[in-house]
Amino acid sequence: MKLATYRTSGRLNFASVDDAGGLRTLPADIQASLQGGFDLRTLSRASSFNAETLPIVTDSPQLGPPVPTPSKFIAIGLNYRDHAEESGLPIPTEPVVFMKAPSCIVGPNDDVMLPLESQKTDWEVELGIVIGERASYVSEGKALDHVAGYLVVNDVSERAFQNERGGTWDKGKGCDTFGPLGPWLVTRDEIGDPQNLDLWLDLNGAPAQRGNTSTMIFSCAEIVAYVSRFMTLMPGDVITTGTPPGVGMGRKPPTFLKAGDTMSLGISGLGEQRQTVKAYERA
Amino acid sequence: MKLATYRTSGRLNFASVDDAGGLRTLPADIQASLQGGFDLRTLSRASSFNAETLPIVTDSPQLGPPVPTPSKFIAIGLNYRDHAEESGLPIPTEPVVFMKAPSCIVGPNDDVMLPLESQKTDWEVELGIVIGERASYVSEGKALDHVAGYLVVNDVSERAFQNERGGTWDKGKGCDTFGPLGPWLVTRDEIGDPQNLDLWLDLNGAPAQRGNTSTMIFSCAEIVAYVSRFMTLMPGDVITTGTPPGVGMGRKPPTFLKAGDTMSLGISGLGEQRQTVKAYERA
Repeated sequence: MKLATYRTSGRLNFASVDDAGGLRTLPADIQASLQGGFDLRTLSRASSFNAETLPIVTDSPQLGPPVPTPSKFIAIGLNYRDHAEESGLPIPTEPVVFMKAPSCIVGPNDDVMLPLESQKTDWEVELGIVIGERASYVSEGKALDHVAGYLVVNDVSERAFQNERGGTWDKGKGCDTFGPLGPWLVTRDEIGDPQNLDLWLDLNGAPAQRGNTSTMIFSCAEIVAYVSRFMTLMPGDVITTGTPPGVGMGRKPPTFLKAGDTMSLGISGLGEQRQTVKAYERA
Repeated sequence: MKLATYRTSGRLNFASVDDAGGLRTLPADIQASLQGGFDLRTLSRASSFNAETLPIVTDSPQLGPPVPTPSKFIAIGLNYRDHAEESGLPIPTEPVVFMKAPSCIVGPNDDVMLPLESQKTDWEVELGIVIGERASYVSEGKALDHVAGYLVVNDVSERAFQNERGGTWDKGKGCDTFGPLGPWLVTRDEIGDPQNLDLWLDLNGAPAQRGNTSTMIFSCAEIVAYVSRFMTLMPGDVITTGTPPGVGMGRKPPTFLKAGDTMSLGISGLGEQRQTVKAYERA
């Protein structure tokens, strides 16, 4: 199934997505279960409804993030060989793990805000993994059994905060609006091989990033198994798996986002996002 | 007030702590509010009860973490000059920010487990700040108005995972049981000056760490203001503020935790923790 959220009067509602891309409101008890978590059993219950038989959402509400409040938003750095090269950094010998603040999560088409003092905000289309079952020290062979599904992530990054402000990368990765998720969580059964998905990102309509998950250094299964050796993964946790080449930092000269820019991005089978860049506005 | 949690039949209950240190069960509606969040208004309602008039908990239940599920568990590195020196690292010119996985949080006296493959698990007594009100781009002068209170944190750290496995520190900071919190969340009104608190940690009964928050490089107010420029702080978020000298990594030769070791640690006015170190056990 494809799971989405949409906003009505400040509230997030969960919906199933029908074959034509329409939103279909899930029953209230399923919505309540999804509010409580993203375990495989709850998702399976949500999947058991034929979307075509559910009430269609007739207006065009703003989409929210399919996974609104994960307990962890983990990220893998430099996971495409060409991107490590364009960043001027060595090819990792084991996954680079950092964390995005869950407070950065927004819907797939929400505005991305440039933080105050930001000079180097950049884009990164990425395949996100959503955990469906607790995972601790899982083997690579069984890792994907713990995955609920996949979604598009824009791992928006402030390069000066990330690389020039001392310490770890987390400062430049979790600013408000730096985590657009969606449009959908697509359950694992609908994605044949997560290592053969096209990724793309256009900046102001011009191609910026083009890639395929087949060129990831560490596969989704390797990543889930690896991270589960350092922390227990919980249902709903999101792991974003790194970006292919074509980010602004890698251009000569480097190019960064400015107010008014638009980013369009997507992954085959997982839908598309579109964000407008704005100067910071107080919430 | 002093807020604590305790476990009965696998459930966490919130309690107020009376002058004699006894647990006093808070009314059900207050407990439900606290389950939903740690904003200042909810804490103020909880504080409005005279602990001495609430039902006392007569058995001796295991304490849980006073803040069980923060949306973020943020940490500041190298925030005591002497600890930066013992780590062989330069004195930071701005706060070093990293993140601990919230899944690492346990009660103050729960066992600390050595992860599989761990060779270098280390201790760090720290003052933790609990946010009580949303904070985004707050000034240093107003930063403490956004603080609910303070608690003791043991920022348990696996040094090989942190420093020798590529990338950022997060791999060595968020392993299961690496975040004992408590025994209490002590509200801000009970702590006069957070920059004049003694910290101590004993390993197997022998002094290991001795410090005072007066020697922090960046004060609590500076830290809250600083972090709020990179991510919005939410009620219940925990920021642990760095450790004074005396960690195992700084000993000559370095000394790390082994199964059977005990750690006792505390901060003036914030109570004490005591953990036994165990080999990893599957949950």
